[in-house]
Amino acid sequence: MAVAKIAARNADGIAAAIAELAAAFGNRVVTSLAVREQHGNTITWIPNQPPDAVVYPQSTEDVQRIVRICAAHTVPVIAFGAGSSLEGHVNAPHGGVSIDMRDMNKLLGVHAEDLDCVVQPGITRKTLNEQLRDSGLFFPIDPGADASLGGMAATRCSGTNAVRYGTMKDNVIALKVVLANGEVIDTARRAKKSSAGYDLTRLMVGSEGTLGIITELTLKLSGIPEAIAGGICPFPSVEACCNAAIQTIQAGIPVARIELLDALQVRACNLNAKLGLPEVPLLFLEFHGTEASVAEQSTRFGDIATELGGGPFTWTTKAEERTKLWEARHHAALSNFALRPGAQMIATDVCVPISRLAECVTETQADIAESRLVAPLVGHVGDGNFHLTLLIDRDDADEVSRAKALSERLVERALAMDGTCTGEHGVGQGKMKYLLAEHGAAALAAMAAIKRALDPQNILNPGKIIAGDFTVS
Amino acid sequence: MAVAKIAARNADGIAAAIAELAAAFGNRVVTSLAVREQHGNTITWIPNQPPDAVVYPQSTEDVQRIVRICAAHTVPVIAFGAGSSLEGHVNAPHGGVSIDMRDMNKLLGVHAEDLDCVVQPGITRKTLNEQLRDSGLFFPIDPGADASLGGMAATRCSGTNAVRYGTMKDNVIALKVVLANGEVIDTARRAKKSSAGYDLTRLMVGSEGTLGIITELTLKLSGIPEAIAGGICPFPSVEACCNAAIQTIQAGIPVARIELLDALQVRACNLNAKLGLPEVPLLFLEFHGTEASVAEQSTRFGDIATELGGGPFTWTTKAEERTKLWEARHHAALSNFALRPGAQMIATDVCVPISRLAECVTETQADIAESRLVAPLVGHVGDGNFHLTLLIDRDDADEVSRAKALSERLVERALAMDGTCTGEHGVGQGKMKYLLAEHGAAALAAMAAIKRALDPQNILNPGKIIAGDFTVS
Repeated sequence: MAVAKIAARNADGIAAAIAELAAAFGNRVVTSLAVREQHGNTITWIPNQPPDAVVYPQSTEDVQRIVRICAAHTVPVIAFGAGSSLEGHVNAPHGGVSIDMRDMNKLLGVHAEDLDCVVQPGITRKTLNEQLRDSGLFFPIDPGADASLGGMAATRCSGTNAVRYGTMKDNVIALKVVLANGEVIDTARRAKKSSAGYDLTRLMVGSEGTLGIITELTLKLSGIPEAIAGGICPFPSVEACCNAAIQTIQAGIPVARIELLDALQVRACNLNAKLGLPEVPLLFLEFHGTEASVAEQSTRFGDIATELGGGPFTWTTKAEERTKLWEARHHAALSNFALRPGAQMIATDVCVPISRLAECVTETQADIAESRLVAPLVGHVGDGNFHLTLLIDRDDADEVSRAKALSERLVERALAMDGTCTGEHGVGQGKMKYLLAEHGAAALAAMAAIKRALDPQNILNPGKIIAGDFTVS
Repeated sequence: MAVAKIAARNADGIAAAIAELAAAFGNRVVTSLAVREQHGNTITWIPNQPPDAVVYPQSTEDVQRIVRICAAHTVPVIAFGAGSSLEGHVNAPHGGVSIDMRDMNKLLGVHAEDLDCVVQPGITRKTLNEQLRDSGLFFPIDPGADASLGGMAATRCSGTNAVRYGTMKDNVIALKVVLANGEVIDTARRAKKSSAGYDLTRLMVGSEGTLGIITELTLKLSGIPEAIAGGICPFPSVEACCNAAIQTIQAGIPVARIELLDALQVRACNLNAKLGLPEVPLLFLEFHGTEASVAEQSTRFGDIATELGGGPFTWTTKAEERTKLWEARHHAALSNFALRPGAQMIATDVCVPISRLAECVTETQADIAESRLVAPLVGHVGDGNFHLTLLIDRDDADEVSRAKALSERLVERALAMDGTCTGEHGVGQGKMKYLLAEHGAAALAAMAAIKRALDPQNILNPGKIIAGDFTVS
């Protein structure tokens, strides 16, 4: 089963489409190399593949017009949010047009009684939460980066709060989407639940712009907790951290965040943010609820930590101290450059059933040591998801090869444990090679059939998830 | 965009397929009229359309073999669970073969550490929870009927616990599915989250057997709460009940169940179960948590009720009293026959944003009075979802016509409020006519394209959700 192959580079079509776009959108079409390069992948070592033009729409109708022009010329269109994706999602391997949602960044409405809001795709999560603050509500998904909501939905992202609040699949109620044929659909209504046909919302969430371009999102909101308690807890080993996470989840403690940092990662955070944390495996935790309930949760967690030889668990409800800690956690990936200035970064993203987490992390750390690599580890351990930041000297071919081999083994290890190659970063270009092993040929063929049904010309973000020349026998 | 039309009745193909099935499965193929009629719709007034044969597979391989035989002869296959669906889902309008999952009813494994289990589709929710009890875990989705888990996933069902635990879309981790081409796929791995491609799990959940036949489910489990508190609270009006539900949700009280019964529904329950409840609008509530937290939740709810002129809220943590109440609630629909013995029942299922709920319910009750119909009302009001049981004398053409008109107006009212025609019962045959108004032509065409991509012969439960001769624009 094959998806219609897009021409390697449809130069004539691209030129014609850009001319039409320029006529329609004037100086909202930009073709300078600097801008184009900013719209390819820029933050990992996947090569930058710039689009041929960047367009800045201001409405769903604009996006519809862009898609129709590009469809008429069989030209790729690639939605662009904040550019913070890690797997080459915004690259243009076949050239084409990047649709930058920068100007579609409005909070269109808040329905406080229904705990939802409607936003344009270009709004970032920090801006959204600033604008929501007066309503007493917030949008809980927090991938660390100040990503755009459109991009977050497109990659089915999650992050530190997912253990309590779920991932984007759980927090998107409905989407407005421009399809490859130029039609606009609403994937669902604002009702909290529905059984009225196929779940187009969740089909679009995680489809990385390959099935449609998101132009509006209805998002589920949560009440800002009355009280937030947070703190850190040292453990004698990474394994003990994982076991503490497992026991916390099993005990039904509704922890809002439970993040593992290994000793090397703590060291990087100390170097970067001068935190003075003990350089041992740590859990960063946060509890949401009433004053009474966060105290109860914190105490119950503290008991679990003590039983596992960890602790003391020092926690506070003071916002300032918590903010400092979580900023350090959010900057963990970038702080790693302090460990090895000038290095290149590869981020891994496996996720396994939580019962296998300690084993997966322990084996991986042995593999890192054996491979003689610098690779601090952070984990959303309540979800069984963890990341290595492989810090690599790109000019050292041997090191690069050891890093790639380690990364492959990590995915194989996760798959063997009934896990996934990507818990939250998405497939993009970087993880496509693992999909056959993860899903099998028949499931991948079903995905390809859906792609072909909704985008027969393969113009929507081609070369991501389902390759243009993808064949599954 | 049209899906390939299946022959109105492919008699030759059906005969050939049944002969092959009989050769393969012996006395596990049944063609007696009584058994066939049991496998069509039996519990609403949608006409019974029996399949031509019923087969009882024992494994995924059996299902695969059945689907391959039927596909070779272009014969419809209809998955059958407990037969408790309300919209004609299991009818065979084009004839064909019913696949009864009766013998595929095993709990295959419990991963207590991961809070998940793997089941066959024929296991019912009560049996599952009985078998899970020793693990300290339970599966929270409770549609009232003792439905099969395969059917519950297929209809994206929810029920009384959904306000806290979500619907089937939130509690299915992965599915094993036989596709129309006879291939078997696993829609996901057991990891708690993944961003590895299209969300086939949630595409299958709610697809009502039209995109594939579910042969195995990996389900998310929850810990049996340490304490459960429950009780009833009277209110001066249905509107006050709705407002109490809205305020409870907005206050962030993690209520596990919050069910509205109008005075007529209470009367029916009293008649049926001799409960002696006050025949006024009531909320039935349940809170899950620790002893301290359920007491706190109950007190907070009681304060809300008092402010709205309701109460007193009498609650208990005693299992026996709670069980009696919830049994009455579960039997609410059937108890309605006590109001009008011999009547026929039509169940409605709209769901609206919770901010519109009081208005929607109030207008609907006025409409019932004006239409001179007997229609008790129950609502999963924390989700904005409510049901009428229209009790109809089928021989009274005028009454039937008034009931149908009321039902149409109710759907129109819900759609106008950004709601859905079906919160949890599914589309089946009964709700197909509303999908165009609910989704629009472009979204419905996208659903049809997906159906055609995955089932080009239209053999999987044809005539449900997407009609065989379905054309959009």
